[in-house]
Amino acid sequence: MMLSDPSIKYRPFVAVDLPDRRWPDVRITQPPLWCSVDMRDGNQALIDPMDMERKRRFFEMLVEIGFKQIEVGFPSASQIDFDYVRELIDNDLVPDDVTIQVLTQARPHLIERTFEALKGAKRAIVHVYNATDPLFRRVVFNVDKPECIKIACDATAMIKRLMADNPETDWTFQYSPELFTSTEMDFAVEIVEAVMDTYGPTADKPMIVNLPATVEVATPNNYADQIEWFCRHVKNRDSLIVSVHPHNDRGTGVAAAELAVMAGADRVEGTLFGNGERTGNVDIVTLAMNLYTQGVHPGLDFSNITPIMREVEYCNQLPVHPRHPYVGDLVFTAFSGSHQDAIKKGMAERRQNPDSIWEVPYLPIDPLDVGRSYEAVIRVNSQSGKGGVSYLLESEHGIELPRRLSIEFSQVVQEVAERTGKEITSQMIFQAFADEYLDATSPYALINHRLSSEPDSPRIHLEAVIEDAGQRKTIAGEGNGPLASFIKALAANGIEAEIIDYHEHARGQGSDAEAIAYVEVRVGGKAIFGVGLDQSITSASMKAVMSALNRYHAANQPAAPNVTAETLAAAK
Amino acid sequence: MMLSDPSIKYRPFVAVDLPDRRWPDVRITQPPLWCSVDMRDGNQALIDPMDMERKRRFFEMLVEIGFKQIEVGFPSASQIDFDYVRELIDNDLVPDDVTIQVLTQARPHLIERTFEALKGAKRAIVHVYNATDPLFRRVVFNVDKPECIKIACDATAMIKRLMADNPETDWTFQYSPELFTSTEMDFAVEIVEAVMDTYGPTADKPMIVNLPATVEVATPNNYADQIEWFCRHVKNRDSLIVSVHPHNDRGTGVAAAELAVMAGADRVEGTLFGNGERTGNVDIVTLAMNLYTQGVHPGLDFSNITPIMREVEYCNQLPVHPRHPYVGDLVFTAFSGSHQDAIKKGMAERRQNPDSIWEVPYLPIDPLDVGRSYEAVIRVNSQSGKGGVSYLLESEHGIELPRRLSIEFSQVVQEVAERTGKEITSQMIFQAFADEYLDATSPYALINHRLSSEPDSPRIHLEAVIEDAGQRKTIAGEGNGPLASFIKALAANGIEAEIIDYHEHARGQGSDAEAIAYVEVRVGGKAIFGVGLDQSITSASMKAVMSALNRYHAANQPAAPNVTAETLAAAK
Repeated sequence: MMLSDPSIKYRPFVAVDLPDRRWPDVRITQPPLWCSVDMRDGNQALIDPMDMERKRRFFEMLVEIGFKQIEVGFPSASQIDFDYVRELIDNDLVPDDVTIQVLTQARPHLIERTFEALKGAKRAIVHVYNATDPLFRRVVFNVDKPECIKIACDATAMIKRLMADNPETDWTFQYSPELFTSTEMDFAVEIVEAVMDTYGPTADKPMIVNLPATVEVATPNNYADQIEWFCRHVKNRDSLIVSVHPHNDRGTGVAAAELAVMAGADRVEGTLFGNGERTGNVDIVTLAMNLYTQGVHPGLDFSNITPIMREVEYCNQLPVHPRHPYVGDLVFTAFSGSHQDAIKKGMAERRQNPDSIWEVPYLPIDPLDVGRSYEAVIRVNSQSGKGGVSYLLESEHGIELPRRLSIEFSQVVQEVAERTGKEITSQMIFQAFADEYLDATSPYALINHRLSSEPDSPRIHLEAVIEDAGQRKTIAGEGNGPLASFIKALAANGIEAEIIDYHEHARGQGSDAEAIAYVEVRVGGKAIFGVGLDQSITSASMKAVMSALNRYHAANQPAAPNVTAETLAAAK
Repeated sequence: MMLSDPSIKYRPFVAVDLPDRRWPDVRITQPPLWCSVDMRDGNQALIDPMDMERKRRFFEMLVEIGFKQIEVGFPSASQIDFDYVRELIDNDLVPDDVTIQVLTQARPHLIERTFEALKGAKRAIVHVYNATDPLFRRVVFNVDKPECIKIACDATAMIKRLMADNPETDWTFQYSPELFTSTEMDFAVEIVEAVMDTYGPTADKPMIVNLPATVEVATPNNYADQIEWFCRHVKNRDSLIVSVHPHNDRGTGVAAAELAVMAGADRVEGTLFGNGERTGNVDIVTLAMNLYTQGVHPGLDFSNITPIMREVEYCNQLPVHPRHPYVGDLVFTAFSGSHQDAIKKGMAERRQNPDSIWEVPYLPIDPLDVGRSYEAVIRVNSQSGKGGVSYLLESEHGIELPRRLSIEFSQVVQEVAERTGKEITSQMIFQAFADEYLDATSPYALINHRLSSEPDSPRIHLEAVIEDAGQRKTIAGEGNGPLASFIKALAANGIEAEIIDYHEHARGQGSDAEAIAYVEVRVGGKAIFGVGLDQSITSASMKAVMSALNRYHAANQPAAPNVTAETLAAAK
């Protein structure tokens, strides 16, 4: 074992003393209040933080999903956050049933600036925090406990005063003892009670106390113990909305949130699909759908989850994993034959009792409830185990299909598998690829071409010999590059095509490697792929255009339907 | 809310009655037995199942990590699994301290075939299962409880007999009541005890009973309650090794495994980084490292975790998420200034007490323990929030950098940021990119070129006018494509370069779009990138070669160090 002995470097978590804990017997029967921190904690942890356009899109999506509390930024620390909060308020973009929340450190000039950002808001939550755990007190801030309490209370007093000075806004106050989970529990209660004494929450006008697992430090039952301990020991519990904010350093953020809600938390701060610092914040989508499968409506709408995932991927520029619960590309997919068989039987029974309780083997949720469908993946090649289509093409044939082309081609292979009834080998896949794309050489074929350009001119003149239904023709065109001039030359001969997308890469290594070009061409109002392979990058791209034209031609020849047309028909 | 009312479609999980549960007070002080099911449950759920080469690599890696039990396949259902098990045995590839495990259904001909696969093994675990939950009994198999028990016991008796017939192997027997978590607990105990009666395990020669959460159906405390209930009710507990096999449908697989071990489980089946059916199996890496951070050595070696991640990504052809605990690209990264400041203070204190307990803000583990390093990401553009370098280049300038080039270029931008001390705008990034790559036009520049080819010949003849240190030269070469002939023409004039990699894509849409080409060229024994932009795809690729040559030239001119050289020096 190269991992060194951890017993001298790491200390086990010291649990709270709560032998009579009650949370393990609690069932969750209603959703917590949800607060999205995507635009603050999530955004802060992005390689590419959101620009104004992405912020706008994200906020609108959160509102549509049904979030009523949204932490929109840290306006005292970021000019773009400040500007965005101003835009929300000045342009009256916050719906009446939604409250925006902003974070601030417990420092006077930042609190001042926070209230400037919020000036004129209808409703807002001012969220202030300071770190309360012993490590931070000692190493980061060099304060003792009374000084730590004083920081929190001074900030609270200032916020209370600024709230009173701006009565046009319906204010809510939120305090977080940061690093709650590694803070001494009695000190956490002490500092929160001091803040409460300063602010004066009541049952009618409660404050939010947010107890973050800023870093996840122990198994999730410990977080639940801490939350229950806190709720049982803090005074005037009914004047508090107890909020949790789990991170995911140990991969148990979802469990921590669930057990914490069982332990008494009223509110959960998290993000869509768990974006956030390091390993991320707790994933609210999973929490919500976990409730849903227990018969509890989460009050959030994920009935069409894929566009939400794509939008989050766009705004965050981070992927959602293909095995992410409820949404990943693979989670409603069964590869195993015995699983497929069981699901089939369950689905058949359900068709007979469509209004019964959902009970289908291996599917904890009806995929339709989130706008997805169940997919049984019939292995092209399960017995040989040699792997899937795109993998084989890449690893054994050096062909890296663009994603959309890869989807199109998998149908071609599927059709071949069904038609031949044989085990599909790598060679057969390549042959199907060649048949479908590379050997689509009729009616059009490229025989040869010459390019020329003049000094100091960007124009390329092309002369090409092509075959059109068996007849050789010389065509010519001029454009800003070989492909453009080829398209012009074709157009001059009545062959219309428009390039939508173009990819090309070397196949093999070295200067004598072949080039493979993939073009997506719009022809006759339809988008169609073509592929060209040649030792010349120009010839490859022109051949790709010809391939697309020939495939379009074949698909629109009713007398001789090609593989794709058959496949589409079979799929109906 | 478009999500329909779930209360009529979904039934809440019914908990076991265990008010005096003991597991919440248990601390884990030693690791469970680990069994990797990557090559069976994981492999079965891959789009591209592993071929023999990937199976070999994966097995070797698992052995190196320190797994002592490895489920290598389902040989009675898959020929490649059968062949692989035979290879392991026939070529004596299993180390003496490692036991292979194979799965089989409880059907006579499959059991027979399983023993054929295992013939001559030194040690093996035969793992048989049947589904025991009421839904499967009713809908999938149409059996009552006694029939369900009979299936399990008949299979057990047959396995026992075949084990006796093959005494050269040191056998272990494993039984799984599949869908344990949705099976009635008393029936789970009943069927396991019937199997025990048939097989006859003892404290000296125990059998493994594996209690899978085949589908995760409830919060993880329920799994722990079920495991504790089972362990307290089953007879002859000391003749059993109780194993758990959590899946991750609710995103709480890691928590379920941890609480189940607290509840009495001796053994955990899972996979590296959580690959497996649907949402995956439990992730053993996270479980192991969670133990490690509590001072408990997991007995597995993840001290150099990145190559393990890359190898798993290669074998599974699935990504590990950038926020995956302990290993994701972003988990040891701090973006927030206050986090960076706190970490800096913690690291400084640690330098003074290098042998103390690990206590650094926001870092639950020393990144060095897994062969990683902490990275503070200084935002190029944090105040404007306009996002990162590669995103901006792609979204605003249509430039999709290949990954290695993107890393190289981020250093260039960082250097510009430091030198100017100004906020970096999108335009400045593009300018830096242009300065570094596109405007690297000296000493070499492409003035124009002509290509020609003859019918029925793959050879391309190129004539190009280039500038070499201010002097125009006409060069000529022949090759299998424009790039190849250009390289030949350069070589004929004493300019040596070899293409390592080449990417090109359209910038913008339509046939008049520009092409941008990225080439990685080996020159003077070094790999260096060049980029070319032109309306012609051929000119772009040739310009990219020139760009690489010029950058090499600049970097090797001691009198005028370029940006990259300065950056490297500054980084030292």
